[in-house]
Amino acid sequence: MHRKSFEKMACPIARSLERVGEWWSMLIMRDALHGLARFDEFQASLGIAPNILTRRLNSLVDAGLLERRQYSDHPPRHEYVPTACGRDFFPVLVTLLTWGNKHFAPDGQRVVIANRNTGAAVDPVLVERATRVPVGESNYALAAGPDANPRTRQRYAAMAEARPSSHSTSPQSRNK
Amino acid sequence: MHRKSFEKMACPIARSLERVGEWWSMLIMRDALHGLARFDEFQASLGIAPNILTRRLNSLVDAGLLERRQYSDHPPRHEYVPTACGRDFFPVLVTLLTWGNKHFAPDGQRVVIANRNTGAAVDPVLVERATRVPVGESNYALAAGPDANPRTRQRYAAMAEARPSSHSTSPQSRNK
Repeated sequence: MHRKSFEKMACPIARSLERVGEWWSMLIMRDALHGLARFDEFQASLGIAPNILTRRLNSLVDAGLLERRQYSDHPPRHEYVPTACGRDFFPVLVTLLTWGNKHFAPDGQRVVIANRNTGAAVDPVLVERATRVPVGESNYALAAGPDANPRTRQRYAAMAEARPSSHSTSPQSRNK
Repeated sequence: MHRKSFEKMACPIARSLERVGEWWSMLIMRDALHGLARFDEFQASLGIAPNILTRRLNSLVDAGLLERRQYSDHPPRHEYVPTACGRDFFPVLVTLLTWGNKHFAPDGQRVVIANRNTGAAVDPVLVERATRVPVGESNYALAAGPDANPRTRQRYAAMAEARPSSHSTSPQSRNK
């Protein structure tokens, strides 16, 4: 993959995916945020080959999502605990889970996100912090940020001009 | 990869990742939700090899995230437009972007999610729909859902018992 493409790497989504863009990495983070910490625990949960698990754990440590801690001297054994950055990945997992349960669960909701105290399954929604207005693709879009360079600015300005209205609101009108 | 592992596939996160768990797929969805629709547009945006782009687009159509529409007869040309399922992927991109801007943007926010009308960058937060209480890993966790089978139930019950408190609130106390 051409992961170093300039414009791609200006995007925080691409940067995030560089850290967790492997299928296994996201599932390891899922388990780590659920409290699993030891190599054997991850292996039993994921049914993953040991060499791949080692590589993915190391990569998550390097990326700053997990911290490696030694819990036994003889033999030397480590556990892997989410860092603050790793804990901040939780909302990504929640939105992935919610999307999966909505669209890919023909047999019902087998796994949910539940309140730790009440046990009630969450019905999460993404909102703007100040106004609590739901954030959807009809009212929000990617845009150049305050620290964008001229090329990124130009790219998003051109995109906004080419697509003045959301494709979701007028899918038929775009190719006239 | 052993993608068919029983317990893994009961999880809606795993099911979601099966659809978009490739780096490129998420970036294609990012661009598609931004209004890009044609092969050339995706290729120019992503700098991706044509054969890989073809494969990823087909896979997103098969997974139900994009709809293929013919916009030219001579020569036959198609565009790719997000389905309702694809549009529902937007919150995942927003949480990935927010996480990336918080942790992996040493040079500042170059790309943001902005309100389509006001242009203001969003500060999104995931909340419980009814109560508007923020959803974080300190107060929420994965749990067996209403349609879980006995094995999934047992798995999450065992995990909850082994880890009564959040690892984030008492990381030191777990290995006593």
